[in-house]
Amino acid sequence: MSRKPTLALVGATGAVGTVMRELVSTRDDIWGEIRLVASARSAGKLLQVRGEDVVVQALTPEVFDGVDIAIFDVPDEVSAEWVPIAASRGPIVIDKSGTFRMDPDVPLVVPEVNPRDAFNRPRNIISTPNCTTLSMMAGIGALHAEFTLKELVVASYQAVSGAGVAGPARLYDEIEALAGDRTVGSTVGDVRKALANKLSDDSPFPAPIAFNVIPWAGSYKEGGWASEELKLRNESRKILGIPDLKVSATCVRVPVVTTHSLAVHARFEREITVADAHRILEAAPTVVLVDDPQNGVWPTPIDVVGTDPTYIGRIRQAVDFPNTLDLFVCGDNLRKGAALNAAEIAELVASEL
Amino acid sequence: MSRKPTLALVGATGAVGTVMRELVSTRDDIWGEIRLVASARSAGKLLQVRGEDVVVQALTPEVFDGVDIAIFDVPDEVSAEWVPIAASRGPIVIDKSGTFRMDPDVPLVVPEVNPRDAFNRPRNIISTPNCTTLSMMAGIGALHAEFTLKELVVASYQAVSGAGVAGPARLYDEIEALAGDRTVGSTVGDVRKALANKLSDDSPFPAPIAFNVIPWAGSYKEGGWASEELKLRNESRKILGIPDLKVSATCVRVPVVTTHSLAVHARFEREITVADAHRILEAAPTVVLVDDPQNGVWPTPIDVVGTDPTYIGRIRQAVDFPNTLDLFVCGDNLRKGAALNAAEIAELVASEL
Repeated sequence: MSRKPTLALVGATGAVGTVMRELVSTRDDIWGEIRLVASARSAGKLLQVRGEDVVVQALTPEVFDGVDIAIFDVPDEVSAEWVPIAASRGPIVIDKSGTFRMDPDVPLVVPEVNPRDAFNRPRNIISTPNCTTLSMMAGIGALHAEFTLKELVVASYQAVSGAGVAGPARLYDEIEALAGDRTVGSTVGDVRKALANKLSDDSPFPAPIAFNVIPWAGSYKEGGWASEELKLRNESRKILGIPDLKVSATCVRVPVVTTHSLAVHARFEREITVADAHRILEAAPTVVLVDDPQNGVWPTPIDVVGTDPTYIGRIRQAVDFPNTLDLFVCGDNLRKGAALNAAEIAELVASEL
Repeated sequence: MSRKPTLALVGATGAVGTVMRELVSTRDDIWGEIRLVASARSAGKLLQVRGEDVVVQALTPEVFDGVDIAIFDVPDEVSAEWVPIAASRGPIVIDKSGTFRMDPDVPLVVPEVNPRDAFNRPRNIISTPNCTTLSMMAGIGALHAEFTLKELVVASYQAVSGAGVAGPARLYDEIEALAGDRTVGSTVGDVRKALANKLSDDSPFPAPIAFNVIPWAGSYKEGGWASEELKLRNESRKILGIPDLKVSATCVRVPVVTTHSLAVHARFEREITVADAHRILEAAPTVVLVDDPQNGVWPTPIDVVGTDPTYIGRIRQAVDFPNTLDLFVCGDNLRKGAALNAAEIAELVASEL
């Protein structure tokens, strides 16, 4: 392509959209025009991209005319309606929603793991995974490439910003309402009672999140599963290209602002040692090994938030399970977990326009 | 025994000791004299038991003379020295520390699971498990009794009070230092920086715990394991009487004041359904089933803290793993996880004095 490609960011005003504008402003500037698109309510607003004010445009079919690549970060139902419209007007659409991830004609891409899938897109749509799945994919994908993954048992420690901008706002509200009470959290229901006196019930979470953990993320699915847990299973299978991968996950929300963590128990086809894992992960692009527990070195959310890589530590060879590692992963759910992966797909696709 | 037995509480001033005094004051009053014992520093202090002031006595060999049952909740090294001394002066000693748990001549008892073991005690000592192990034992033990447990993969969400009274104090300090800053936790290292300006480095935790999770609990063990993770493995095997039980655990500290939670992936010898688990856990003493996710019903720490039972919810039949359940458990680490289990063992033993 002789001219620089035109990029549209749809959902530019949201939590991920904000990180996306920051990313396209700080990464290699491969883009010509960058259009910011949002709901009619936000149209006309000025937002900064690459140090310049850009007027937000309303979501219409015409806004995609002349666009080469469009990144959508909007609710599932908005994607369901608008992604096909956008794709029919010309641009390759990279969609962050859950709508098209399991569509057999839509590739689900993590550039470190399955970049070639981005070039087989019958519907002109590429999907990017759920943030919880993404948190571990670069690292698990690198281990799988050499040792062949068979099983994953995962427990998550998910940040509140995974629920959108309302998530951190609610956590800060609850923390402010409870701070200074040096007994709160020590008798049954005291957190609920203290919050009821000070805050509205209007929370993006189904229970108080300050001083608490909530074993629920997403919507109800058959068998008692939360949608987030099944996404982690189904998306891992599709990205890694292992249709019979065994996966069980329990997803839990924790009072962390941004950065998802996962405790992962991973069985491979053959024996894998901690030294093997260190060698592979040290060489894996976008993965940072943080694993020296004897010296107190392992990743935590506050030490990695706002940065791009996936951080992996606490790698142990399971004592009782053959060919199995236990490990702990942290990744910023708004960057690699969302905006960054979409930006990387866009750059990958733009390189072949 | 014609007279009521004499009980000694050693470590009466600590976090668990405080709950222990509350428990013996509110449960069936089977005790004659109750002696409170602590370090020489606390001797002479007045503490309430059963509504009366009792003078704390210093830890000496003589303080155990005439005592029938002594409950120790002191650091490992104090137990190592003093538990054998106490046991040699007559009382049956129930020890909460890690010192004697794996001693083949010391039973490790959870009254709901292996009560008979309490009556086979060659050293006159009974040990009570680590709080993380205890959080799940009553429920897992009930399922094992009917379906025979083979494997456990566990990830923990451990409360700060598991680190003693300094744990909640530090969490409250950090929360107070950070409350009001509505961006904290969103850029790398900002929590550490904000705390460094306001608090001393003197924390019971190896990293900030407010707005964070820490994948470390206990001391370093070979292979990169944390002591807490190996305790969960070894103690589960001993309590359940399954010497070849396969266990992998990842222990993570979370900013919750009190009540440990566990995500448990449990494989049994034969097929077990959610309905089977519901039937068994509804009938299990000291277990409360809280499992109706379609209506937002599952346990969370703030909804169960300060109460005695183990709460279990999110029970799912694993989609890809045969004979396997995934579930979520919450239990107050200072009650069933510590003081309550010791009190129950004391009552069990006292019944046969």
